[in-house]
Amino acid sequence: MSINIPRGTQDILPGTVEKWQYVEQVAREICNQYQYKEIRTPIFEHTELFERGVGDTTDIVQKEMYTFTDRGERSLTLRPEGTAAVVRSYVQHKMFGYPDQPTKLFYQGPMFRYERPQAGRFRQFVQFGVEAIGSEDPAVDAEVISLAMELYKRLGLKEFKLVLNSLGDAASRASHKEALVSHFEPRIEEFCSDCQTRLKKNPLRILDCKKDRDHELIKTAPSLKDYLNEESTAYFEKLQHYLTTMGIDYELDPNLVRGLDYYNHTAFEIMSSADGFGAITTLCGGGRYNGLVEEIGGPSSPGIGFALSIERLLAALEAESIELPVTSVLDCYFISMGEKAKEHFVKLTYQARQQGLKVEMDYKSRKMKAQLKSADRLQAKYVAILGEDELAEGIILVKKMESGNQEKIELDHVIDYLKKQ
Amino acid sequence: MSINIPRGTQDILPGTVEKWQYVEQVAREICNQYQYKEIRTPIFEHTELFERGVGDTTDIVQKEMYTFTDRGERSLTLRPEGTAAVVRSYVQHKMFGYPDQPTKLFYQGPMFRYERPQAGRFRQFVQFGVEAIGSEDPAVDAEVISLAMELYKRLGLKEFKLVLNSLGDAASRASHKEALVSHFEPRIEEFCSDCQTRLKKNPLRILDCKKDRDHELIKTAPSLKDYLNEESTAYFEKLQHYLTTMGIDYELDPNLVRGLDYYNHTAFEIMSSADGFGAITTLCGGGRYNGLVEEIGGPSSPGIGFALSIERLLAALEAESIELPVTSVLDCYFISMGEKAKEHFVKLTYQARQQGLKVEMDYKSRKMKAQLKSADRLQAKYVAILGEDELAEGIILVKKMESGNQEKIELDHVIDYLKKQ
Repeated sequence: MSINIPRGTQDILPGTVEKWQYVEQVAREICNQYQYKEIRTPIFEHTELFERGVGDTTDIVQKEMYTFTDRGERSLTLRPEGTAAVVRSYVQHKMFGYPDQPTKLFYQGPMFRYERPQAGRFRQFVQFGVEAIGSEDPAVDAEVISLAMELYKRLGLKEFKLVLNSLGDAASRASHKEALVSHFEPRIEEFCSDCQTRLKKNPLRILDCKKDRDHELIKTAPSLKDYLNEESTAYFEKLQHYLTTMGIDYELDPNLVRGLDYYNHTAFEIMSSADGFGAITTLCGGGRYNGLVEEIGGPSSPGIGFALSIERLLAALEAESIELPVTSVLDCYFISMGEKAKEHFVKLTYQARQQGLKVEMDYKSRKMKAQLKSADRLQAKYVAILGEDELAEGIILVKKMESGNQEKIELDHVIDYLKKQ
Repeated sequence: MSINIPRGTQDILPGTVEKWQYVEQVAREICNQYQYKEIRTPIFEHTELFERGVGDTTDIVQKEMYTFTDRGERSLTLRPEGTAAVVRSYVQHKMFGYPDQPTKLFYQGPMFRYERPQAGRFRQFVQFGVEAIGSEDPAVDAEVISLAMELYKRLGLKEFKLVLNSLGDAASRASHKEALVSHFEPRIEEFCSDCQTRLKKNPLRILDCKKDRDHELIKTAPSLKDYLNEESTAYFEKLQHYLTTMGIDYELDPNLVRGLDYYNHTAFEIMSSADGFGAITTLCGGGRYNGLVEEIGGPSSPGIGFALSIERLLAALEAESIELPVTSVLDCYFISMGEKAKEHFVKLTYQARQQGLKVEMDYKSRKMKAQLKSADRLQAKYVAILGEDELAEGIILVKKMESGNQEKIELDHVIDYLKKQ
């Protein structure tokens, strides 16, 4: 009996993996230009990190984490997102002491959430994200947003838009929170049990509730933008000014509330506006988190970052019928007629590869026609044909596939010949 | 209170991560030349896969797996190695039907074993490995071995050696197994409880036992090489012939037994012979597994592969004091004097990066001297200095760091100027 892949996960196979490699390479190049350096944190962390860093009232922590106990009785959790671990590492390695601030980091790798699998949603999915920690300048917010936009643009995506909001600073949020509690409290029993818990802990998240989204009190709730104090408004205006000078268009959406607890000031999403992209149109989400580093046990260090799913990025490219330049060609396919020729090719392919050539040979002693078909499938630029007679003479027949031209080459010179082409 | 990284895991930080990126890039290039394509399987699999594919008598399965139950009551395990999952994917996606055989795959990513952490041994570690499935030609064994050797060679490693053995085919192993049982059975009560279990299930693994390694019966045990039948001997000789024609040196070691159950014919290790590399000298282990695909539920398909740890590879490079070419330079550091200049740079750095340049600016309104120090640390080729006066005039001062030469450039032309350098 065969064993299948776990539900909600996928294999990425040759033929598709090249797209992943290409997207990752472009993301790395952009990060290099922007001076964001890669960081790799473990696949799992102490569960407490996510309870504190993601927020214990969130759906992620309450319902979606892969939590288990290891053989040493530690509670560990497969990371559901990237920011908490990067901040943990920032604190543990005292990066706040680095001479160049903000510390600019990127990560890329699998994340895990136990959700109901559906089109475009996996239990293991890959996120690319950046974090800039150690500056509260709105110019850094503009840089982070522009980096995300640049990735989609450079990959050729056209139908996407930036949506922006400000959650204000701690003082603004406190006034707004008070107003929300007064607004919902008289009729809180009409809301779901989650929202009843949220009322005291984090009433902002009631606005985000999937169950109560149609309740009239949601529509009439006090809007955060009316509670932004002067500093918060100035901060938000400066960010918008920078985006405008950079030529980056955006829409304002006062209802944009990030699902995680630790955001303040800037919140943004990049959304696909392509037809037929499906119900989930968010490609990328990010924002500022000035309180998170302290929450994780470090000194006060303001940060901003974003995360995006590679799966959704690829889906958006597909929705716009964008072909990535991932075609691969072979320098030469070595066609052997007979065992002796094949044995000679074992050595010759090895030497050709050592010289930097990309070559392939047949290991199944197939007929010439089958080997020619392989050469075609692999898009070989040349084939080199060797039989017993040629081997005895010390020559090989080299054929250029595009033109059909063929030449006899001395066997000892075939690698040099191919290198010159 | 701060939260630390889980025991036995590590963060890979900027300054070190560049070595990982470099090694991975070289491994990818070699795989590309050898026509091995990347496959990405999930971080976890159904536990049964490893019980069957790795072998339920192995230490890995019995003592070292991170196994947990998900919210749907499935038993899942963080992958302790890569081969079982690649074979699972090969069967599930019916790769045995692909027109070009063997199917040649590589993987790279984290693996997990709950072992006692020690120097160079982690609970999460990164393996690079290849699998060639669908051919029983010893020429494929030679190709796989040469690929591993090529990686170490291309990275500049000198003090390493290939160690080779044959475990024979199924018939040879059956005769040898019988001889082992006769050898150990009369005095099996002198061995550890694990070995007593192994006697019936897999007596070959007694030879590998860490507890009983000094027992006299281990030294006098019948050697597999005396039980190889004609076909197995011919196979092994052909492989050695290929390696010799390729110019790859090797040592034979009849005691080389791979820890996993499903190997037959070729078994090999690549070991560091550098002084001071420490007790664990194995860099890479691999071998042929002609029975594994059937064990996982697919049609009989002979395979061969290897896996190597990136951590140990980097340790071996360090033991030989090999510096990888990972230095990074910056095209230009933009030095701003005053808020207006900084604001101008927000736009200018964005435009420069869009044009493919690698640039950085200051976000902390520091003094000129501090910004120059940053430029030095980041190995900037140029600095461009902008103050209020220059901004009013529409010019910028560009200085070449190496020569100290400086020029006044029109502000609108500075990106073009830098691109030409």
